[in-house]
Amino acid sequence: MKLSLIGEDSLEGVTLFHEKEKAKKFLDRIEGKKPLFVCVVATTETAKIPGLSAAGANPAITDFTPPADVELLLLGKCKCISGVPVTPDGIPTPALITMSALHLAKTPILIVNAGLKVRPMVPFVDLSGSPGRDIRTGKAVENVDELFHNAQILGEHLAGTCDYLVIGESIPGGTTTALGVLLAMGFSAKGKVSSSMPANPHTLKLETVEAGLRAAQIRPGDLKEQPLKAIEYFGDPMIAATAGITLGASDKAPVVMAGGTQMTSVLATLATLNKETLSKVAIGTTRWITGDSKSDLRGIVSEIASVPILAANLDFASSKHAGLRAYETGVAKEGVGAGGSAISAIAKSRGEITMNRLIAEIETNYEKLIGAR
Amino acid sequence: MKLSLIGEDSLEGVTLFHEKEKAKKFLDRIEGKKPLFVCVVATTETAKIPGLSAAGANPAITDFTPPADVELLLLGKCKCISGVPVTPDGIPTPALITMSALHLAKTPILIVNAGLKVRPMVPFVDLSGSPGRDIRTGKAVENVDELFHNAQILGEHLAGTCDYLVIGESIPGGTTTALGVLLAMGFSAKGKVSSSMPANPHTLKLETVEAGLRAAQIRPGDLKEQPLKAIEYFGDPMIAATAGITLGASDKAPVVMAGGTQMTSVLATLATLNKETLSKVAIGTTRWITGDSKSDLRGIVSEIASVPILAANLDFASSKHAGLRAYETGVAKEGVGAGGSAISAIAKSRGEITMNRLIAEIETNYEKLIGAR
Repeated sequence: MKLSLIGEDSLEGVTLFHEKEKAKKFLDRIEGKKPLFVCVVATTETAKIPGLSAAGANPAITDFTPPADVELLLLGKCKCISGVPVTPDGIPTPALITMSALHLAKTPILIVNAGLKVRPMVPFVDLSGSPGRDIRTGKAVENVDELFHNAQILGEHLAGTCDYLVIGESIPGGTTTALGVLLAMGFSAKGKVSSSMPANPHTLKLETVEAGLRAAQIRPGDLKEQPLKAIEYFGDPMIAATAGITLGASDKAPVVMAGGTQMTSVLATLATLNKETLSKVAIGTTRWITGDSKSDLRGIVSEIASVPILAANLDFASSKHAGLRAYETGVAKEGVGAGGSAISAIAKSRGEITMNRLIAEIETNYEKLIGAR
Repeated sequence: MKLSLIGEDSLEGVTLFHEKEKAKKFLDRIEGKKPLFVCVVATTETAKIPGLSAAGANPAITDFTPPADVELLLLGKCKCISGVPVTPDGIPTPALITMSALHLAKTPILIVNAGLKVRPMVPFVDLSGSPGRDIRTGKAVENVDELFHNAQILGEHLAGTCDYLVIGESIPGGTTTALGVLLAMGFSAKGKVSSSMPANPHTLKLETVEAGLRAAQIRPGDLKEQPLKAIEYFGDPMIAATAGITLGASDKAPVVMAGGTQMTSVLATLATLNKETLSKVAIGTTRWITGDSKSDLRGIVSEIASVPILAANLDFASSKHAGLRAYETGVAKEGVGAGGSAISAIAKSRGEITMNRLIAEIETNYEKLIGAR
């Protein structure tokens, strides 16, 4: 069975959102192939700035969101917290989507700790990274070169274990650190990064980055050719690790960068360090990101490189559960590689896993985990 | 090209040492297939008992041997020590063999830290294990259940990334801890475990285990049905992790247990916990182990289960280098999955990588690393 084209820019469950031809080609390339899902997790103190992130019931608890997310992926339940990570309004983590997609498609999972405060109670790859600092200090990531280099070695070996990689992330506050890297490198990302909240706090994000720029005495664009410095000053450990793994792997295996606007900071890093990598990657995300009026993934990507964007047509409008329907109001939107894992489940099964089947699986898992009926 | 049979029990470079029919079947099954090499590393304070281990220039430095070994595998050189790990006589680590075999066959590598004192400066999977204690305390391994369970989860996912696993180990003092587990479980392993020294210190090993048995008030055989307890009291973190990974993986992928007599403690664990696993595994080792008159791998295995043993016909007798010729006198013999990785390189390449080519590669790497000419 081949994935069939529905209209001019959509296949079963997947929209060719940007660079359609390249997107179609990429999808053809991964169809029926065996992926490895890698989830890169880290924390940044930046997430504790009130009002910045909804990836946790409150800012203090964001340290637990990434380890809880990956426990959910590997165990089907969390261990370091009770229940599952939720937004302040109680809306569950997109890891629920990822977990459902990966389990349906029987995709193997590897967790990568790029710098966590709380260790997950599951196996994970350690890259000797440290938790990220508040970017207002202008000293965001320690030992970024070692972290990046370790990630690159890991990527080289992981590429030998699969046909392609899907790399997702979980790091609360990650769109603000992405904005930091993009602005320091001179991209016009102001007002364009996404948010886990319906009302995107663009002003607060910009103020946060500007405080960091002042502290480090860097003007926007000063670090155009120095992405690792931009990450060191204003980024987070996830960006360094994901860029390193992708760079290490892309020689042998294509990579789905599974995330929203955060992944553009990874893309900007790769575009500077090794342009050849760009022909091996695609961004895979959700339609909640590509349809978001308060961010502009396509705009940022276009400024960096000619890289395709695929969007999983996840739609919870008809869900029985208010907690899932909330996604349609702009809560969460993406994270833990939700969009990319959905795309890869459809592609791996050559469409046998339909979007409807995936959504039904998500509903079932929601009921099991949240106890709703 | 098919691996050709040379005589009745040998193929190009590989001897069917035990359970010949099963060994041949296992080799057929992995021929041309894609392995993942996993190196499980840990330390035990047991290694610091003077005269017990030669896996380091002196007992105090054995903490650095496993991290240095895996740095050699991933980087082609060590970072946490200068040079490479050597015996007290300056004979280099068998990781040199493993590294040569894996690089020739382009086999991906994953390092698993089951409990190290010194962190390797390369990426590794963390199983939340702690370094092993001196088994004379009768309290060898902390949190063995958590370690085993984490390893099992890892094994389940790794099995989805390859056709089969090759699992090697690096833990100085590991044959004594293996003896501890075997005796506690009631196997007659006395005088049968191997050694990295030509003169196997059997008496010292037995005294060490007996001190542990006394401390824990356990008689030989008391833990026949409780391998995890035997590991907790008298084993090491490597045994728990390797058993867990193998158990988790073997449902989907066969496993080459790449090591000498240490692997029999893993086998004993699996034979008690899940007999079905036994049909999916083989021990892969070196002819220095199978030809050793001072240990009895076949004897121990026979008592546990009907599992095949394959031996790589590594032979350094004609080497230009005294440091390699020393292997023919019974130094080192095995470790870091040397034998299993050699077998897997030959099988993966369907014999295109011959034993001669592998030995030439080892010589070249020896010259690069030791600086000899």
